[in-house]
Amino acid sequence: MCQGIIDRPGASRIARELLDLRESGIPDSAFDARYEDIHAGIESLLVGAAGEDKGGRIHAGRSRNDEVSTCIRFRLRQEILRLLGLVVELRGCLLQIARDHTGTVMPGFTHLQHAQPTTLAHHLLAYEQALSRDSERLWGALERTDRCPLGAAAFAGTGYPIDREYTAGLLGFSGLLTNTMDAVSSRDFATETLAALAILAGTISRLCEELILWSSPLVRFVELDDMYCSTSSIMPQKKNPDVAELMRGRAGTVAGALSAVLMIMKALPQSYNRDLQELTPHLWRGVRSSSESLHLLPGMLSTARFDTARMREEAGRGLTTATDLADLLVRRYNLPFRTAHSIVGRAARAGEITLEGLDTASRELVGTSLSGTGLTPEEIREALDPAGSIAARSLPGGPAPETTAGEIRAREQALGSEQESIGARGRGVETAIARLIAEAERLAG
Amino acid sequence: MCQGIIDRPGASRIARELLDLRESGIPDSAFDARYEDIHAGIESLLVGAAGEDKGGRIHAGRSRNDEVSTCIRFRLRQEILRLLGLVVELRGCLLQIARDHTGTVMPGFTHLQHAQPTTLAHHLLAYEQALSRDSERLWGALERTDRCPLGAAAFAGTGYPIDREYTAGLLGFSGLLTNTMDAVSSRDFATETLAALAILAGTISRLCEELILWSSPLVRFVELDDMYCSTSSIMPQKKNPDVAELMRGRAGTVAGALSAVLMIMKALPQSYNRDLQELTPHLWRGVRSSSESLHLLPGMLSTARFDTARMREEAGRGLTTATDLADLLVRRYNLPFRTAHSIVGRAARAGEITLEGLDTASRELVGTSLSGTGLTPEEIREALDPAGSIAARSLPGGPAPETTAGEIRAREQALGSEQESIGARGRGVETAIARLIAEAERLAG
Amino acid sequence: MCQGIIDRPGASRIARELLDLRESGIPDSAFDARYEDIHAGIESLLVGAAGEDKGGRIHAGRSRNDEVSTCIRFRLRQEILRLLGLVVELRGCLLQIARDHTGTVMPGFTHLQHAQPTTLAHHLLAYEQALSRDSERLWGALERTDRCPLGAAAFAGTGYPIDREYTAGLLGFSGLLTNTMDAVSSRDFATETLAALAILAGTISRLCEELILWSSPLVRFVELDDMYCSTSSIMPQKKNPDVAELMRGRAGTVAGALSAVLMIMKALPQSYNRDLQELTPHLWRGVRSSSESLHLLPGMLSTARFDTARMREEAGRGLTTATDLADLLVRRYNLPFRTAHSIVGRAARAGEITLEGLDTASRELVGTSLSGTGLTPEEIREALDPAGSIAARSLPGGPAPETTAGEIRAREQALGSEQESIGARGRGVETAIARLIAEAERLAG
Amino acid sequence: MCQGIIDRPGASRIARELLDLRESGIPDSAFDARYEDIHAGIESLLVGAAGEDKGGRIHAGRSRNDEVSTCIRFRLRQEILRLLGLVVELRGCLLQIARDHTGTVMPGFTHLQHAQPTTLAHHLLAYEQALSRDSERLWGALERTDRCPLGAAAFAGTGYPIDREYTAGLLGFSGLLTNTMDAVSSRDFATETLAALAILAGTISRLCEELILWSSPLVRFVELDDMYCSTSSIMPQKKNPDVAELMRGRAGTVAGALSAVLMIMKALPQSYNRDLQELTPHLWRGVRSSSESLHLLPGMLSTARFDTARMREEAGRGLTTATDLADLLVRRYNLPFRTAHSIVGRAARAGEITLEGLDTASRELVGTSLSGTGLTPEEIREALDPAGSIAARSLPGGPAPETTAGEIRAREQALGSEQESIGARGRGVETAIARLIAEAERLAG
Repeated sequence: MCQGIIDRPGASRIARELLDLRESGIPDSAFDARYEDIHAGIESLLVGAAGEDKGGRIHAGRSRNDEVSTCIRFRLRQEILRLLGLVVELRGCLLQIARDHTGTVMPGFTHLQHAQPTTLAHHLLAYEQALSRDSERLWGALERTDRCPLGAAAFAGTGYPIDREYTAGLLGFSGLLTNTMDAVSSRDFATETLAALAILAGTISRLCEELILWSSPLVRFVELDDMYCSTSSIMPQKKNPDVAELMRGRAGTVAGALSAVLMIMKALPQSYNRDLQELTPHLWRGVRSSSESLHLLPGMLSTARFDTARMREEAGRGLTTATDLADLLVRRYNLPFRTAHSIVGRAARAGEITLEGLDTASRELVGTSLSGTGLTPEEIREALDPAGSIAARSLPGGPAPETTAGEIRAREQALGSEQESIGARGRGVETAIARLIAEAERLAG
Repeated sequence: MCQGIIDRPGASRIARELLDLRESGIPDSAFDARYEDIHAGIESLLVGAAGEDKGGRIHAGRSRNDEVSTCIRFRLRQEILRLLGLVVELRGCLLQIARDHTGTVMPGFTHLQHAQPTTLAHHLLAYEQALSRDSERLWGALERTDRCPLGAAAFAGTGYPIDREYTAGLLGFSGLLTNTMDAVSSRDFATETLAALAILAGTISRLCEELILWSSPLVRFVELDDMYCSTSSIMPQKKNPDVAELMRGRAGTVAGALSAVLMIMKALPQSYNRDLQELTPHLWRGVRSSSESLHLLPGMLSTARFDTARMREEAGRGLTTATDLADLLVRRYNLPFRTAHSIVGRAARAGEITLEGLDTASRELVGTSLSGTGLTPEEIREALDPAGSIAARSLPGGPAPETTAGEIRAREQALGSEQESIGARGRGVETAIARLIAEAERLAG
Repeated sequence: MCQGIIDRPGASRIARELLDLRESGIPDSAFDARYEDIHAGIESLLVGAAGEDKGGRIHAGRSRNDEVSTCIRFRLRQEILRLLGLVVELRGCLLQIARDHTGTVMPGFTHLQHAQPTTLAHHLLAYEQALSRDSERLWGALERTDRCPLGAAAFAGTGYPIDREYTAGLLGFSGLLTNTMDAVSSRDFATETLAALAILAGTISRLCEELILWSSPLVRFVELDDMYCSTSSIMPQKKNPDVAELMRGRAGTVAGALSAVLMIMKALPQSYNRDLQELTPHLWRGVRSSSESLHLLPGMLSTARFDTARMREEAGRGLTTATDLADLLVRRYNLPFRTAHSIVGRAARAGEITLEGLDTASRELVGTSLSGTGLTPEEIREALDPAGSIAARSLPGGPAPETTAGEIRAREQALGSEQESIGARGRGVETAIARLIAEAERLAG
Repeated sequence: MCQGIIDRPGASRIARELLDLRESGIPDSAFDARYEDIHAGIESLLVGAAGEDKGGRIHAGRSRNDEVSTCIRFRLRQEILRLLGLVVELRGCLLQIARDHTGTVMPGFTHLQHAQPTTLAHHLLAYEQALSRDSERLWGALERTDRCPLGAAAFAGTGYPIDREYTAGLLGFSGLLTNTMDAVSSRDFATETLAALAILAGTISRLCEELILWSSPLVRFVELDDMYCSTSSIMPQKKNPDVAELMRGRAGTVAGALSAVLMIMKALPQSYNRDLQELTPHLWRGVRSSSESLHLLPGMLSTARFDTARMREEAGRGLTTATDLADLLVRRYNLPFRTAHSIVGRAARAGEITLEGLDTASRELVGTSLSGTGLTPEEIREALDPAGSIAARSLPGGPAPETTAGEIRAREQALGSEQESIGARGRGVETAIARLIAEAERLAG
């Protein structure tokens, strides 16, 4: 591992000084504006402490260009792992709430119109599934972030006999960013991370839109905890879902950061250009903004009180089960799909669907009576019952209670093993860093 | 496989009609504006041909919502596979050119300033490596596109006993999009694809920026073929790199499509909303725009004539190898890195670096003479020689000819197996479709 | 006016041919792909008809670069005038509806929570006012679009003694785009137009969001006409506000076009670059998309049926007038603002506010009784009455019926004179074109 | 002016406390997190100092909603005025440099290819003209920012008899934002400002791109001062134009802020929603980023050293004046434009254009000799001379020295009167504020 670039006493001294800095913290002076960046500030500290002869050697085989790229990747890796953990936590929270609501009947909407009954569990599982793809994208971004540019120097690689695999390993990277010009000039790992976060922020904005809608006195499906609302001293029942609104707005914040970064990278010639420095704050803003929402959501969801009675009440509104009745006619009379629908549609014009209405509609439309053929008012009532409609939709991914219950168990298992992976990756990094410190201490003597 | 939803004669008749349509092509009448979409148009054809009793059954267990999502995913899967093939082709083209230029010395730039010598091969490999990550992202997008929403119906799942795994398999999908609400309301697969394409368009814009720059009479590193240029009747040497400029501009086109889609999705409540229809054209525009650039680039690159003499000439300009000389001083005199740099920097002020200049600088800066210590003018000349500088940078990913040659071989192998995977995935889809047709023919009798 | 650039017979012949083309329409052959653009196609027609000696002179003093910029500006001017007319029409429609609803009480929302009562007129006037600023921005964009680049040629100006003021006048332009390099290389007029349209699309998206919300069975403030909805054959009361949803989505479409254009223009060196061609379709897409929404909105609004009873009903919900009662206490007892609010807030906890409740709260909070001091139950009822609350807010811009009625009259007048200006500007262009034709006919002999 | 809302002693006390705060500065405690915002913090200070009975009255007739909108507009007005001043300064700087370079011949480029000669003055005037439109747009944004929402309260207007015109006047606003719902819920003034700044950032990115290009050793048209560059200790001639690169990147930063804001506003229902708070930081970031660039540019431009010899040298390259020679043939022999171009184009193939070459080409192409018809080698040389070509382009906006000199004088005059207007507007605000303070002091007694 010893490449002989810096002699033993020099290396030993540098290691000792760096370990001391790690212990005591980097002093403010190293961040002084006269240094181009913190790397130059630290080098200056080393030179001050150990003399130029020793301290001046720390920059051997390096350049600001590969250092910057390495540092951003090092920190972003940690941030992505943290974000992955938070998304898993949010998904776990959705599953937990869903578990209590596999039987909670609610209206499902298309175009914000009551369309068919479903359950709260089914609705929340839609978000869990969307978030699981957000997780997948973050894993992809991590994959491309976790590669080490060190050794690329300014862009042409260093002439010193650096062992790139070794240094990458010490920093816990999964592999090399091989080509040294690409290593300093590309930032697609940052753009990809922001793209994943922008899509995630979009998922969150949809969930928050619904929480805002559901909190409205016009809907009253949910009551968010005061901690996530601003209240009015004079209108005690008014609870403004401020936190959900801020999270909805953040979809714009993260997408704006992505937009900025795509534009900054446009048409930059090789290799390093200072424009890249303008890019970095957008990355951290996107990360921070996502992180804030993810921190708040599990608490906001788990303290929310769902008004299942209101949901049930709305589920029965508007003949949302008429389709089920039509399907019954299809099965019972072997009617074509469209015909059955026409009969039910015509019968529904009266507001309530009765056997007589169906019979009349059938005679008018296809010339046959339904009354004598065994369909009972009881069967009609059953077909129109939201709970029955839901129970019938037991195909994979459907809202039937036993289906969603099974689905929840499967997702919880998946979530468990994803949590495992996140933990393992995090521990891998920690182990590498511990080894780095140990080697430095061994070197420092 | 027979679920008994449509009786045998009905299913047989529908299959026959659909196979006929496939043979003869869908008539224009099915696209008439009076149908909500092409699915309704085809259903109307079936009803016309086979009667409502039979034709009217085709919609059983379906809704426009899951049909639309299935169709977009079906086509996008194909498009992504095609795009993957094109990126692989472009990368192959870069490798092929690089193979001829591992020894072509050129200046490497930072901030558009000559920084250090490198080779054309090394420069092109930077793009190949960036494009390989673009490929990786497209694979990720394919992963999340290639899941089947069919059976989700309007959003609550159908009550018919559909076998979702079976229909997904017939359409060649890799798996299900399980939750039926998520299945019709999410479009993150489209956003992710556009994000991958926007980053790819950014990579292309950088490559094109360099080709435009290099084509300029101010630089003259490359001459693009007339096929990719507009020329002036009166200024015969003027060759405007129009095609490269259009591709550079497309970075904006694709990023704009991504921006549009992120904004359209923002804060949409569950489940289906018509806004989703406004989204689709942006997806296809992004795909088409990317596809156009990818089709043109390999031809443009492989017909480009690189002026290696001009490159060589510029590589020697501006003491870009001064760093190498400093490194020699570090090794020879065990000087600290910064000290050696200062000596060379001071000596360089004269414009040309000589032994005398170094000696003077050394005496002024650190009080020791270099003249009597064995450094020869020959060694200085060698250290300052671009080709020598390049040869010394043989670390992984560096520009040394044998390093890049090895890298090219490794990348070509990787490219070969990626091409395999693309082909296999494409054949998998074809096989599924063939089986679908065979089953339909069996059913049609 | 005769600059002697083309001799009289040549000019006469060109004029005659162009007039003929104008009469008979440009043949498809002129759009053939072998011509770089339509200008080259027309020139080729002229050369074919009149010989190169005459037809070949039409290009004298021109270049594709200034022609393209002139044509885009010529057409965009027309489009902006048309859009301005449509925005005025929409605003007129809002005012007309508002006129009928100055007394229609409805709840005003903050955070989608009932906050204070207002009227439908007041609500609609908020949109009219926002749209009036959208109009202002379009006028600004028109101002900067309506300048003539002709004569700039490739970018350095033509050497022919062209009279730029004269040709600008013939094309109806308000002035010159003086500097010839800027004239061919800038597209900020397009970006600015798209920015104005993106903000307008945002205004429209908010209006449509409310129409969608109000159409929901959860709210039922409005019923949109079937022409703007898709309906369900089986759920007759379900009316999906598809058109409003598409318009909401268009906010993304126009903002995406803006994003694309900003990115395409980034960092382009002077003067003309082909990237500019990639920009133009984004401009037209933004214009077309805006135009479609503006065409549909007045019809959709004027056929909408507002359920004023539902609005009235919701206006009384949730003590939204508690603030008014607090203000009454402030005035009657000279209480500080915060104190009065606290008293009312505490009294409101019972659900309904009574004199007793207020008295108790006052004694608990500030130690004085309200019961003996003249406040009557009648006064409390009046203060809590939504209509009374609205009537009290008669400050400029407030919801009081006579205030909004006055406001409507003022806006209608302003709208009338804006319509005048649009008409005048349009007629100015027509006059210029008529004069151009007349001059051409005079020249053609 | 006295509306009797707060009694004289209360008003007097509040005024005195506020004046004291103004004098002593707002203490940190007022920014404490327990207050919803600074307005609440100040109110709490007042209550602490003057008692709830007096201090608690400051909020009478107000709401957080109109306060926030007023404050943002108040500050943004100031920022826009400052930005306008900076743009004027930058334009003045461009004019000043242009004045010294009306005779500085340089190549003009299209597609980064030498196209025709022009002058540095002409080139810089292109930017001045583009920036003048950026100024116009900022004036438009100012127009729509400088309207006062105060009195709108939560959104329904206050019931207190506030004199909106009076309070608007005290704060120096030009007018009212009349409709009270629009007044608190709209942020288009912010979006418009960011749009104007994004287009301005685009203009700046183009200028910086050229400075970066021109600084490259490949071009050497300009040398930027060290203050705006980073240098290399070892490569003394290497001057990285870091500041110009950062400014180029800022085009992405400002466009990203615009993107964020457009998306945040999308589809927000009336009236106030907390999403609006997420918007504000994007506005300030866009303002700050623009401001930083505008502060640096005049210094960077006025200290830049233009290498006029290099420019002159490149101006003669590549037969960029061939068009002028063709025009000479048109005039001299009354040849059609296209014919003359063909003759010159053919003659140019030899690299240098001679009388013999033209003669041969003419005989081959149109069958007539040019040699006997009076064209002299001297005339050819003159026609091909860059300076002559430039002098001939004296049409308005063209590069001829006397034309640009006239243009510069005209623009300087325009700039002077714009500076006047900015000053006047600024003084108007100051006068209003001074009057506000005076009234407060009068009231405080």
